[in-house]
Amino acid sequence: MAMNAKQCACRWVLQHQHKLKQAARSCHLKVKEVLGIDEYRNYEYDNEYTFKYSELTTTLAEPKQLRAKPDVSELKFGQIFTDHMFKVFYHKALGGWQKPEIIPFENISLHPAAKVLHYAVELFEGLKAYRGVDGKIRMFRPDLNMQRMNLSAIGSGLPTFDGSELIKCMNRLIQIDQEWVPHSEASSLYIRPTLIGVDGTLGVAQSESALLFTILCPVGAYFDDKNDSVALFADPSYTRAWPGGCGDRKMGSNYGPTIRVQRKALRKGCQQVLWLYGEDHQVTEVGTMNIFIFYVNERGERILATPPLNGLILPGVVRQSILQMAHEWGEFQIQQRTITMNEVIRLQEENRLLEMFGSGTACVVSPISSIEYLGRILPIPTMEHSKPLYNRIREQLYAIQYGHFEHPWAVPIDSVY
Amino acid sequence: MAMNAKQCACRWVLQHQHKLKQAARSCHLKVKEVLGIDEYRNYEYDNEYTFKYSELTTTLAEPKQLRAKPDVSELKFGQIFTDHMFKVFYHKALGGWQKPEIIPFENISLHPAAKVLHYAVELFEGLKAYRGVDGKIRMFRPDLNMQRMNLSAIGSGLPTFDGSELIKCMNRLIQIDQEWVPHSEASSLYIRPTLIGVDGTLGVAQSESALLFTILCPVGAYFDDKNDSVALFADPSYTRAWPGGCGDRKMGSNYGPTIRVQRKALRKGCQQVLWLYGEDHQVTEVGTMNIFIFYVNERGERILATPPLNGLILPGVVRQSILQMAHEWGEFQIQQRTITMNEVIRLQEENRLLEMFGSGTACVVSPISSIEYLGRILPIPTMEHSKPLYNRIREQLYAIQYGHFEHPWAVPIDSVY
Repeated sequence: MAMNAKQCACRWVLQHQHKLKQAARSCHLKVKEVLGIDEYRNYEYDNEYTFKYSELTTTLAEPKQLRAKPDVSELKFGQIFTDHMFKVFYHKALGGWQKPEIIPFENISLHPAAKVLHYAVELFEGLKAYRGVDGKIRMFRPDLNMQRMNLSAIGSGLPTFDGSELIKCMNRLIQIDQEWVPHSEASSLYIRPTLIGVDGTLGVAQSESALLFTILCPVGAYFDDKNDSVALFADPSYTRAWPGGCGDRKMGSNYGPTIRVQRKALRKGCQQVLWLYGEDHQVTEVGTMNIFIFYVNERGERILATPPLNGLILPGVVRQSILQMAHEWGEFQIQQRTITMNEVIRLQEENRLLEMFGSGTACVVSPISSIEYLGRILPIPTMEHSKPLYNRIREQLYAIQYGHFEHPWAVPIDSVY
Repeated sequence: MAMNAKQCACRWVLQHQHKLKQAARSCHLKVKEVLGIDEYRNYEYDNEYTFKYSELTTTLAEPKQLRAKPDVSELKFGQIFTDHMFKVFYHKALGGWQKPEIIPFENISLHPAAKVLHYAVELFEGLKAYRGVDGKIRMFRPDLNMQRMNLSAIGSGLPTFDGSELIKCMNRLIQIDQEWVPHSEASSLYIRPTLIGVDGTLGVAQSESALLFTILCPVGAYFDDKNDSVALFADPSYTRAWPGGCGDRKMGSNYGPTIRVQRKALRKGCQQVLWLYGEDHQVTEVGTMNIFIFYVNERGERILATPPLNGLILPGVVRQSILQMAHEWGEFQIQQRTITMNEVIRLQEENRLLEMFGSGTACVVSPISSIEYLGRILPIPTMEHSKPLYNRIREQLYAIQYGHFEHPWAVPIDSVY
């Protein structure tokens, strides 16, 4: 029996070019079989590590289930969904990840004690697919989203997986619903992978069952008026993230508590919250975006700065892309460092503040026009330049995303099988 | 039309003895009707404020749907649920709270974009019903849970309601499933009211639809071995709550991020996490419990202390009850104040530390035997006294809960209609 297991594992490694640790897991699995653990019997290999695109099954929607596609000019963020969705279950008692499926878009049925409904055992990602000027559909840097999603899973006690397998499944989903990718450069297809703990037991503990699903929605601009800059509300009595917490993971728990503060901002006539941290009122994030400041230092040098990844900051894909692009341009200094409100005020008073903007997948780049802070409104001159940096960044990212030229960050959905 | 509305409102106030503001809302509603807002047409009065027990409908489970009741000795926490559940929807577009229902226990069907699944728009409560020595079933201080639930709803941007209406609905649910209330003084019926945001739209924003549901489970001890004290793991690199956050609300977002730390504690051979805060390593909570310290000060006086409700601490019902009981006893000092790890260590070293224990609905009172902190294990002498305070508190609370004598904190479920 030991020989059989070894032979099986070796042949399997050769055939599938998997890593050796997979073989080790497979041997371990055979041991489990010998010991009579029934739930492992039906599995050819250990599926603790990941689900597999090669096992994906697809059930297409019936013609009567297909929905009408909206007019591109009417698209709002996250209101309309496509005809299909992706899902795959994880059940520890059944050996781990199950077979992935693409099915017609449908409601999710959950036990009322499911951990996601009580203890926020949940995380998500957001990325986009774009219909390029050449007709090809591309995703923007999905590998970075997959890395971050696995880090969020670890933070939530949920199972990790091989991100390249989910990318392949998402590609297939987008191919099936490809007519939902807007034929417009102002629009795109927002992709929302989500991982939730579905154990139907009360008690704050690791969820031994999970559901990973992905839904798609055609989207226009994230903010209602996309030509407008945003006014921010900064109140140091609210804190988004803190050392020793999970503010650098895309876990649901980072978002629910922000809604009451966002409502307060709206009542104040502002569009977004500027999240401060600490007694020195460090600038950390804006709404659900990273934040950048572009200014002139005392020696007359231009500097682009953003807060460092110190545990309080979500490691944004657009954030990282902006830093890399600016580095390639080599035209000004780039700093990842703490920025305080006092510094922003001083720069503004000394006319050395050029621009402030948020960055994120939903909005790409969002210019900031003012900050309400401690009872006064600080005007930010982002919109007062003829060739602002924020717009140059936005246009460069758009050009990559919509395939104006080939770029490794824009990955055609049919290129990764 | 204006006259009719007024007459209607007045008759309604007299008949139902509701507050005048309800009547004002009702008039307002009639104005909406005149203006032709269709969704208000079917409602006799404005249901923005609360749902009503008087509108409760009940669908009993078929005999074949009834589940076998478990043996009391095998009960674990939160594994088995009763035959029925309570639910009521809130839809802003339909005027607010809908009609409440008791139905057979069933899965919840959610849109895949439901805000609870992505942004942790969710909160819960935990309380218990006890079968007393006189056969009567009592809930323990449900009014306090209702107050806290409404505060959590405000923190989550979810709708509030009249807590006395939910208590009446829960009473009815428990009456229907009364045979599930264990006939044992070691056990009880755990009640889990939950409020989730169910809007099927992406975007971090207030949920305009919500579902309030309540499920019941017969429970034994919260910890596997109820005679055992707990060993704690205290690591200052993890923070549960922080100023400007929502750590004092029973929102799901406070729990998901704790699971990874709880797992670390288990790997260290500890049962629970002792949550520290700040550079002086303040003792804040233990697992999902409040914490108490009982010690002798330098003048030889006995003091019971617990951290203050400064925004970092969940305002526990058992915590408040312990403080009130100790105040009535008048035998030692009671303090709500900051407690640091340095103080705990000094008290232990000077043999002035008597006891430490956690308090919460699930466990009632849980004695602490050790704390692993900065690489050393600090023994806590809670179990080394012949008549420990924690046990006196526990027995007093049990006596109230199981109706050994009449007490206003233990409310019979048939007394509040």
